Amino acid sequence: MRLVERILKGERAAIAKAITLVESSRKKDKEESKELISKLILHPGHSVRIGFSGSPGVGKSTFIESFGSYLVDKGYRLGILAIDPSSQLTGGSILGDKTRMSEISKNENTFIRSTPSRGSLGGVSFGTREAAIILDSAGYDFIFIETVGVGQSEIMASNLVDIFSLIVGPGSGDELQGIKKGITEYADIFIVNKSDGDLKLQASKTASDYQSALSYSSSTEGSIDKKVLLVSSLEKTGMDDVTKTIQEIISSHKKSGLFQKRRANQITYWIKEEVRNHIQYKVEIGIGDDSQLEDMISNVLSGEDTMYNAIDGILKKLLK
Amino acid sequence: MRLVERILKGERAAIAKAITLVESSRKKDKEESKELISKLILHPGHSVRIGFSGSPGVGKSTFIESFGSYLVDKGYRLGILAIDPSSQLTGGSILGDKTRMSEISKNENTFIRSTPSRGSLGGVSFGTREAAIILDSAGYDFIFIETVGVGQSEIMASNLVDIFSLIVGPGSGDELQGIKKGITEYADIFIVNKSDGDLKLQASKTASDYQSALSYSSSTEGSIDKKVLLVSSLEKTGMDDVTKTIQEIISSHKKSGLFQKRRANQITYWIKEEVRNHIQYKVEIGIGDDSQLEDMISNVLSGEDTMYNAIDGILKKLLK
Repeated sequence: MRLVERILKGERAAIAKAITLVESSRKKDKEESKELISKLILHPGHSVRIGFSGSPGVGKSTFIESFGSYLVDKGYRLGILAIDPSSQLTGGSILGDKTRMSEISKNENTFIRSTPSRGSLGGVSFGTREAAIILDSAGYDFIFIETVGVGQSEIMASNLVDIFSLIVGPGSGDELQGIKKGITEYADIFIVNKSDGDLKLQASKTASDYQSALSYSSSTEGSIDKKVLLVSSLEKTGMDDVTKTIQEIISSHKKSGLFQKRRANQITYWIKEEVRNHIQYKVEIGIGDDSQLEDMISNVLSGEDTMYNAIDGILKKLLK
Repeated sequence: MRLVERILKGERAAIAKAITLVESSRKKDKEESKELISKLILHPGHSVRIGFSGSPGVGKSTFIESFGSYLVDKGYRLGILAIDPSSQLTGGSILGDKTRMSEISKNENTFIRSTPSRGSLGGVSFGTREAAIILDSAGYDFIFIETVGVGQSEIMASNLVDIFSLIVGPGSGDELQGIKKGITEYADIFIVNKSDGDLKLQASKTASDYQSALSYSSSTEGSIDKKVLLVSSLEKTGMDDVTKTIQEIISSHKKSGLFQKRRANQITYWIKEEVRNHIQYKVEIGIGDDSQLEDMISNVLSGEDTMYNAIDGILKKLLK
């Protein structure tokens, strides 16, 4: 396959074409994409995959733009994959065009792609995983995986990366204390953004808060390497610290075996996730296609049967 | 079943016991719970179920406390069910104890329960749906369903309620514009909180922003009834407006048939969701129990087989 060779040479057009292929839900494309990825994984690169998450308003995009520019200026090649939570109703994108990162996207050593997370039918996040494999084979040094919000998309993202980082703003809402409790478990780096101007003091305080929250989560694997960092995306300060921390954590995780263990766990996760996606798809299609299953639901709506009987009946029809 | 009668009389201890029952994942409890709910749905109440969502920091809890007190003071009976996104790693709760709503929880006309969302195994959100049925049969006037964050838990919550409302703070992050685009589709009411003191002007501006975002979503069903409201939970202003708006929307949706249509769609949603949950559970258990399936994954980890073959093999073993 000529596409494989072109990707291994790092050709941008080939990379773009391949990512479109792995994201496609057309049956023919899926077959080609399987063949492509099966070949590419025989040529692994050396890239480190880093996840970035954070609530809207913390300056996530600005940070990624700022940190990305810093890495590219240092001569690194950088791929950015953004998982874009798409609307369930219209299928529309929430992030919108990736025009925000206008400066960095012009650089020839960066490759930026935004993917809708519209999961279930064909698993687009599975496609993000394969897009990372493509960028890795193409010789990229860093692959950023960007996600929005707390919840399912963050759990998926944490299963796509070697290091997971959470970007937060200075100050905190009422519920921050609780959120921290959950997130400290799967984030490795906590980046407190906006440590500049009037917010500098508050950012420092927030960093201490996270530091103390971390001390309660010492039981998690890899927690000894967890770090809280202060940055200003505007003034571009702290970027060297972030780079150094990433390299130290990766090196420590490789030594302890956690790096390899996470990658193996992730393969298991994605196999199960794809099995679940396929079955979910089959449930949707199966019910729509099978008038007997449709009838079971109608009987519940008309009050002739209970929901429990319908659920049992559908399961009996679908599973071995 | 004596429990049914005690619930229909509105006995708090019976309600608490019944909710614990429907949330239980023990097989015996599940059977009892099916029997209980099958009986209760024959005695529907008149309650309106309202969903409240919003990012951390917008003052969601404070609003719910404030609005809840307002309703209770007016003589209404109020049930509050909070879906608490639980940590995937430890199973721990993110919201923590529901002690925050200390004032309102003391009132005998309110019933508050926080449920972990820890979905998959047995569908706890399905349990929230049943908890709402219990409160409805027990004669509650309003049932609040509270959820955190954007994403899956919000979609679940929107499938549990008659009216969905989003609480937002004044001002906006970079990505707010995009988020609004997605959320305007399934929220009916946008409550701009913190319209007080220094933030009053900014809250007004945010309300106008949402109002203009709404004008772009006029194609969605029920969009004609959507409203943006300004409140201050601190100063307890705007609460009469929220109440009036809820009553107007419900009355309009009942007239147009949207109210009934949503309830029917939700039954269909929960049947499918439970089918998916059961299958997902079977995938987890099935893979762990069946050494043949475990081997398929091991072969991928050792590099002897591709992920695609493992996925296909597992699906063949599980599905008809």
